[in-house]
Amino acid sequence: MPTDTKAMMDPRFTGMPTFMRAPYTTDYKALDIAMVGVAYDGGVSNRPGARHGPREIRNVSSMMRTLNPTTRTSPYDTCNIADVGDVPLTAMYDHAKTTDEIAAFYTKLVDAGVRPLTAGGDHSISYPILRAVAAKEPVALIHFDAHCDTWDEFQGSKFMHGAPFRRAHEDGLIMGEKTLQIGIRGSQIIPDGWDYSEAAGMKIIFMHQVEDIGIDGIVDMCRQTVGDMPVYLTFDIDGLDPVYAPGTGTPEVGGFTTREALSFLRGLRGLNIIGADVVEVAPPFDSSNITSLAGATMMYEILCLMTEALKGQEK
Amino acid sequence: MPTDTKAMMDPRFTGMPTFMRAPYTTDYKALDIAMVGVAYDGGVSNRPGARHGPREIRNVSSMMRTLNPTTRTSPYDTCNIADVGDVPLTAMYDHAKTTDEIAAFYTKLVDAGVRPLTAGGDHSISYPILRAVAAKEPVALIHFDAHCDTWDEFQGSKFMHGAPFRRAHEDGLIMGEKTLQIGIRGSQIIPDGWDYSEAAGMKIIFMHQVEDIGIDGIVDMCRQTVGDMPVYLTFDIDGLDPVYAPGTGTPEVGGFTTREALSFLRGLRGLNIIGADVVEVAPPFDSSNITSLAGATMMYEILCLMTEALKGQEK
Amino acid sequence: MPTDTKAMMDPRFTGMPTFMRAPYTTDYKALDIAMVGVAYDGGVSNRPGARHGPREIRNVSSMMRTLNPTTRTSPYDTCNIADVGDVPLTAMYDHAKTTDEIAAFYTKLVDAGVRPLTAGGDHSISYPILRAVAAKEPVALIHFDAHCDTWDEFQGSKFMHGAPFRRAHEDGLIMGEKTLQIGIRGSQIIPDGWDYSEAAGMKIIFMHQVEDIGIDGIVDMCRQTVGDMPVYLTFDIDGLDPVYAPGTGTPEVGGFTTREALSFLRGLRGLNIIGADVVEVAPPFDSSNITSLAGATMMYEILCLMTEALKGQEK
Amino acid sequence: MPTDTKAMMDPRFTGMPTFMRAPYTTDYKALDIAMVGVAYDGGVSNRPGARHGPREIRNVSSMMRTLNPTTRTSPYDTCNIADVGDVPLTAMYDHAKTTDEIAAFYTKLVDAGVRPLTAGGDHSISYPILRAVAAKEPVALIHFDAHCDTWDEFQGSKFMHGAPFRRAHEDGLIMGEKTLQIGIRGSQIIPDGWDYSEAAGMKIIFMHQVEDIGIDGIVDMCRQTVGDMPVYLTFDIDGLDPVYAPGTGTPEVGGFTTREALSFLRGLRGLNIIGADVVEVAPPFDSSNITSLAGATMMYEILCLMTEALKGQEK
Amino acid sequence: MPTDTKAMMDPRFTGMPTFMRAPYTTDYKALDIAMVGVAYDGGVSNRPGARHGPREIRNVSSMMRTLNPTTRTSPYDTCNIADVGDVPLTAMYDHAKTTDEIAAFYTKLVDAGVRPLTAGGDHSISYPILRAVAAKEPVALIHFDAHCDTWDEFQGSKFMHGAPFRRAHEDGLIMGEKTLQIGIRGSQIIPDGWDYSEAAGMKIIFMHQVEDIGIDGIVDMCRQTVGDMPVYLTFDIDGLDPVYAPGTGTPEVGGFTTREALSFLRGLRGLNIIGADVVEVAPPFDSSNITSLAGATMMYEILCLMTEALKGQEK
Amino acid sequence: MPTDTKAMMDPRFTGMPTFMRAPYTTDYKALDIAMVGVAYDGGVSNRPGARHGPREIRNVSSMMRTLNPTTRTSPYDTCNIADVGDVPLTAMYDHAKTTDEIAAFYTKLVDAGVRPLTAGGDHSISYPILRAVAAKEPVALIHFDAHCDTWDEFQGSKFMHGAPFRRAHEDGLIMGEKTLQIGIRGSQIIPDGWDYSEAAGMKIIFMHQVEDIGIDGIVDMCRQTVGDMPVYLTFDIDGLDPVYAPGTGTPEVGGFTTREALSFLRGLRGLNIIGADVVEVAPPFDSSNITSLAGATMMYEILCLMTEALKGQEK
Repeated sequence: MPTDTKAMMDPRFTGMPTFMRAPYTTDYKALDIAMVGVAYDGGVSNRPGARHGPREIRNVSSMMRTLNPTTRTSPYDTCNIADVGDVPLTAMYDHAKTTDEIAAFYTKLVDAGVRPLTAGGDHSISYPILRAVAAKEPVALIHFDAHCDTWDEFQGSKFMHGAPFRRAHEDGLIMGEKTLQIGIRGSQIIPDGWDYSEAAGMKIIFMHQVEDIGIDGIVDMCRQTVGDMPVYLTFDIDGLDPVYAPGTGTPEVGGFTTREALSFLRGLRGLNIIGADVVEVAPPFDSSNITSLAGATMMYEILCLMTEALKGQEK
Repeated sequence: MPTDTKAMMDPRFTGMPTFMRAPYTTDYKALDIAMVGVAYDGGVSNRPGARHGPREIRNVSSMMRTLNPTTRTSPYDTCNIADVGDVPLTAMYDHAKTTDEIAAFYTKLVDAGVRPLTAGGDHSISYPILRAVAAKEPVALIHFDAHCDTWDEFQGSKFMHGAPFRRAHEDGLIMGEKTLQIGIRGSQIIPDGWDYSEAAGMKIIFMHQVEDIGIDGIVDMCRQTVGDMPVYLTFDIDGLDPVYAPGTGTPEVGGFTTREALSFLRGLRGLNIIGADVVEVAPPFDSSNITSLAGATMMYEILCLMTEALKGQEK
Repeated sequence: MPTDTKAMMDPRFTGMPTFMRAPYTTDYKALDIAMVGVAYDGGVSNRPGARHGPREIRNVSSMMRTLNPTTRTSPYDTCNIADVGDVPLTAMYDHAKTTDEIAAFYTKLVDAGVRPLTAGGDHSISYPILRAVAAKEPVALIHFDAHCDTWDEFQGSKFMHGAPFRRAHEDGLIMGEKTLQIGIRGSQIIPDGWDYSEAAGMKIIFMHQVEDIGIDGIVDMCRQTVGDMPVYLTFDIDGLDPVYAPGTGTPEVGGFTTREALSFLRGLRGLNIIGADVVEVAPPFDSSNITSLAGATMMYEILCLMTEALKGQEK
Repeated sequence: MPTDTKAMMDPRFTGMPTFMRAPYTTDYKALDIAMVGVAYDGGVSNRPGARHGPREIRNVSSMMRTLNPTTRTSPYDTCNIADVGDVPLTAMYDHAKTTDEIAAFYTKLVDAGVRPLTAGGDHSISYPILRAVAAKEPVALIHFDAHCDTWDEFQGSKFMHGAPFRRAHEDGLIMGEKTLQIGIRGSQIIPDGWDYSEAAGMKIIFMHQVEDIGIDGIVDMCRQTVGDMPVYLTFDIDGLDPVYAPGTGTPEVGGFTTREALSFLRGLRGLNIIGADVVEVAPPFDSSNITSLAGATMMYEILCLMTEALKGQEK
Repeated sequence: MPTDTKAMMDPRFTGMPTFMRAPYTTDYKALDIAMVGVAYDGGVSNRPGARHGPREIRNVSSMMRTLNPTTRTSPYDTCNIADVGDVPLTAMYDHAKTTDEIAAFYTKLVDAGVRPLTAGGDHSISYPILRAVAAKEPVALIHFDAHCDTWDEFQGSKFMHGAPFRRAHEDGLIMGEKTLQIGIRGSQIIPDGWDYSEAAGMKIIFMHQVEDIGIDGIVDMCRQTVGDMPVYLTFDIDGLDPVYAPGTGTPEVGGFTTREALSFLRGLRGLNIIGADVVEVAPPFDSSNITSLAGATMMYEILCLMTEALKGQEK
Repeated sequence: MPTDTKAMMDPRFTGMPTFMRAPYTTDYKALDIAMVGVAYDGGVSNRPGARHGPREIRNVSSMMRTLNPTTRTSPYDTCNIADVGDVPLTAMYDHAKTTDEIAAFYTKLVDAGVRPLTAGGDHSISYPILRAVAAKEPVALIHFDAHCDTWDEFQGSKFMHGAPFRRAHEDGLIMGEKTLQIGIRGSQIIPDGWDYSEAAGMKIIFMHQVEDIGIDGIVDMCRQTVGDMPVYLTFDIDGLDPVYAPGTGTPEVGGFTTREALSFLRGLRGLNIIGADVVEVAPPFDSSNITSLAGATMMYEILCLMTEALKGQEK
């Protein structure tokens, strides 16, 4: 079912800033894809502010339009897509409860057959989302990030934003050998996360290997690893270089350009992406909205991928 | 009829940024007061950007809550208030047509018995709003601003943002002797506006007179001049000092503090305010959201005034 | 015992940024006054970032020098003053544990006879500090702020930054009738905090009363209420107008100027201030270091007050 | 005739900010190349501010010096070059009249045998410039941009900044098959512009093709297409990635780096460039002058190209 | 002789940014008043950047127009006023030589009977200006500043920006008992400057005395002290509160508002001001051009004063 | 001897900001490597502010951790490394004296067998550092920069920041044919520096040659040129593109990315680097700390190189 895109014809500085100016609804039953905000940053280890991410990504996403320049098709032509608002939080100071609330919200979406595309929030939110999305069977994971996020804990918390994929792997939500971690870089105080990922069979593509492997090579690795499995795509904005994403909590120099990120994402066409998120956009550290624009654009491109995946499913 | 304020209980960085987090509706029939955005800055003579004002004021207005600390009452308890979105514009490059479109939109609101509270946009929008609000009879005008905005034209345009109250006066929409212009300052290239206002019988309170008159004195002048007439309140954010409102197109140093502005507005309690606007918030020139926060707060205080005016009417 | 101020003669952009460029030591036994950082903002309800406050206040406090222009004396001539670093936190995601850790740190200082002057952090830190400072007997409280911070809870947390003085009052750490709350303003969603403060006998000076009372009047109220009791002074930077303190989490327009704040603080000379804090400086929202400069200057003035209090004690 | 470059020896923060610190004159008769500002942004569809472009580019262009590091020659040695100020505008609210005024100004330059190098302003100004520059015969067009700018109209205006090259093509000012559009990307709401360009025979180099074609390949395409025809070079700063040009109205992620842009421009040496512009620098959205520095540098490189073209002509 | 003000009618974002958009000339013989830039900050003790002051003040001064709102007269109607550019510097790393170069430049102006109005630069430039302006006889000094600038030396330099008025007093260029220092505040590391000023008979108005004295009181003190002597007016932008002037090297909280500064300056009408400067505007630390706008406005008001002084002389 | 890295385990926003959170000591006798700040920018020719570099780099360097992701080793495991503070300056207005003071400080370090890693400061500081480091024998120089810095003088100064390597070469501190200058670009007013470098046998790698040579090619040139000679590595942050280093005094578009810079530095493993600096970080022109983060990361990588060099020496 197509989406009503009338609002997208208006001047882009007008109107209510829903994601992509898609319709806003809290009645998600009829949707193919729900765009969701998770305004939570209680899991950060350094600079907070990602709680403001969903609102700012919504704001800037008015820059997005319908037709993808590479495919000349619109995700809205074939899928019913809406902004379903933010996950309601009632205990934002309690990471464990918040994790449960997020998981519960997504479980309802998934149970209704709706695929979620999320704007975070810090990376800790991917764990509860995976609890919903991979509730029935483990999924493959394509993970774009400067950090493995498979550390065990920090300051006593196992839910913090450097740990979600360790938790997810421990819970059997993601398959180690079907997981790729792309863009890893930056110094570390202990090798724990790197070691865990490797021990779990995850494929780590360090940033200093990228020049040799190339974007096409990364795409090939992803496609071969994941095949036609259901795959969850998690895009940490700090996978981009800090110049393309200054507004984030844990920047590491030497990352991807947005041009590379677009090539990478477009290389994933046809994969069965059943859910995705764009996380760690922290507007208080941004300048000129560079980061939220990158985040919104990545969301749009992923939306196109998810739409194509759904079309592929129909066949 | 009270307003649903449930969304105002949520953390302020979550949810859709309607004005004050009031309900959003395009069906304004049942409303007492409609909050409207006019995302138009085609009338500026210097620095543009006020087209982004409604969206940023909406964003920051999530900081506003229900109970006014001076009255300990909530505007939402007695009035049905909503955000009705932005005036749809179809010819944003054509000032004359846009003026007509704005006037037409407000005429529908006024005809439905709804009082409008507007976030601009540049000051040129007050003229078409007045064409709707004062369609049946001329109104009094309380005009807070650094500039008289009674100039004749600039660069050949009679609709530009330095002229709305000359046009309104020429059209008989506002009564000269029932008009107060408060906060006027800054050098001028010709005395035309100052002269017109004075010739029209408008009371100009220059900023350099404020120390002597005092805020209470200004309030008294307003109350005595306006009495119980229907009054339109127009609040140009550049009436504030540039320090309190850097994000505006034509700043003039030596203006009001927000504390004085709050005292001034609170002094107007009980006046029959039938419509109001807050204009000239230009986010691209703002820093730390200082200006949009001032704008949002002034809107909230005016909303309280308008609610009380309506309650007074009922009696 | 005087303090070594040699480092304060160097160009202000050089050297390690301790508070005021005072000596740094973790051996606080011999000190009269310890300057402490509490880099914690887990209690904020809206915009985070105060965790970065201590570091930025330290940085900007290099602008401070020795001689106070109103007394022409230096706090360092009579007291042994040092920067003792930040409270070590081991469980930053757990508000209850963090509260205990902060209290434990300050208990050691207090037990050693050292008076603490703190840079926060969000306002939730004042409660554990009071648990140390008022452990033996309840203290008077002079509380400069836009908010009463006597709300009960938010999102299920009783430790959040709107609640510290309710907790402190419930625990008998502060005496209601010896508490003044100065600068209160801004709308609220429920009147709970205002009501609690009033019921507890606290003197609330709302901002809209300040024009009438005057700074001298506020000083008089403080002096008469507090007398020669031990008093804790808590200075929330959002008591200042947002123009003077844009870098804070919950700005409310219409606050104090720094000039008024200086007059106010200087009016407190001779009070027996046994501890103090400057909180809610959130650098990510600041611009041009305006807020951290205000914070650093207030700390310096309070340091002068605390030094004089100690000298008074000696007599 | 060489240019007086004495002012370029002074410290770069001193003196009047003419373009490149070249002489300022309104008497352009004796010039080879005139640098012109068009401070007009009445044609933007989204974020305004390019009206401030000429002034800020002038300001930052003091960073430019005489000798090009690749050729070790100076454009000022062989050509008489000056800043002739901004196009005087008398009807800035009226796009049609403004278009005529711009065209009239450039017609005088062209009639005097002076080649214009322009700093905009939004892209709508290229159409009236082409009306002057291509008045006698159609020209080839090398168009660097994220957008084709061959859309038909928006909000009822045929002069807006997404349409100049459609108008120019309709008027026979540019030859479709001699036009290259380089860097095109970003989603669109309708395919109209893409389709028009293709139907007109223009060569579109989409950004997602650039990795394959390479900068050298683009240069080859330009040289082969254009040959020794008179060519107009239009450089929309949003052809650069938003990271290199955040200060623009319609940023699209995934664009060129300045390094690529320099290689591209330097590849055009020897082409018969009879006029050029750098447009869409919008300082209110810039940070750290990144965009105006890029704009100024591109102008300098184009100035070198135009000088060489003139020398080539002489032979 | 009146000044050509034609350029001041144009849109304010266009044209070359001379001071106030006054004519630019290096032939100052026929002038009554010359506006001069001194782009030098080699004398700062802390944060540099005032070298960029003249250019940014010029840029923002386009906001200034002709008619003063308090007098409704224009300085340009009665005086020949121009921007004569920046003082050429040939040895910017050598403070002593630079001091001589500045003095030499102003001597030529003074010898030609031209009164200088200067935009700095740091405060060290006032000393060489005084060497020219007071060459024949000592002058009175009205000095608006947070600091006395009568310190002896710092880091071995007697020319640094905290010392100009000590040097000027030592040289007999200013009369101690005819000198007023207004707005002094902030802590100091040694009392040297305060002490020198007092010993020299200078009247120091500390900021903490201003509430009692009032602006009118300060004006009275100035008028009584100075009488009809020739007076030099030096306006350090850091006399303003950092909120009104964040872009400066040595901010001290608790300063004047621009409104007070305007009242103060307007109170000086009729004094025989033979020269003046506005110094210490440091654009790299500014935000939203707040400081340069304040600087430009103060320059405009002082220009009005200087014009009236000249008219008074004629009588 | 390993370094105490305990402080590096704490949350990164806490604690005193020493370089990398390494221990702070002024007793450098036992050190292998000393990290030093030189807060001096008296040599800049354009935009000042690098005096604030050491403090801001220290601040941001808390982001650095121990283990290098490419080697999985920590520099702190094998070397005794500390922050020894800033070079004390007593005559900051006198370039010649300051040069001597810097040289004297480093001489003491070198005489104690400590290798220095410096954060500047402008590039003029490299000359006095080389006077210490190369006192006994000339060294090879790997120089990453947009400018050759072999100009003779500017405004009469031979110590300014465009001249250090001319002075060093004239003094026989560096060997011309063992010097590489990498990343040179930007226009120049005279070819003096380029010519001197070439005449001295220095290898200049212009930026426009980099696409052809490649990073690996540059690394090869360095290794072949330098061999196992003692080499000094000087990293001017403006060698990076302005997008990666906006906070610098003399930006030139078209520079290196940080990713290339990391590859380049990592290619130098094993060279006998006896000293290094990172200069020209000017925080007042930075945004979002992009430049200081790049600077801190480069320092960390160079620290790893220096540690490996020392280990190599031991063998």
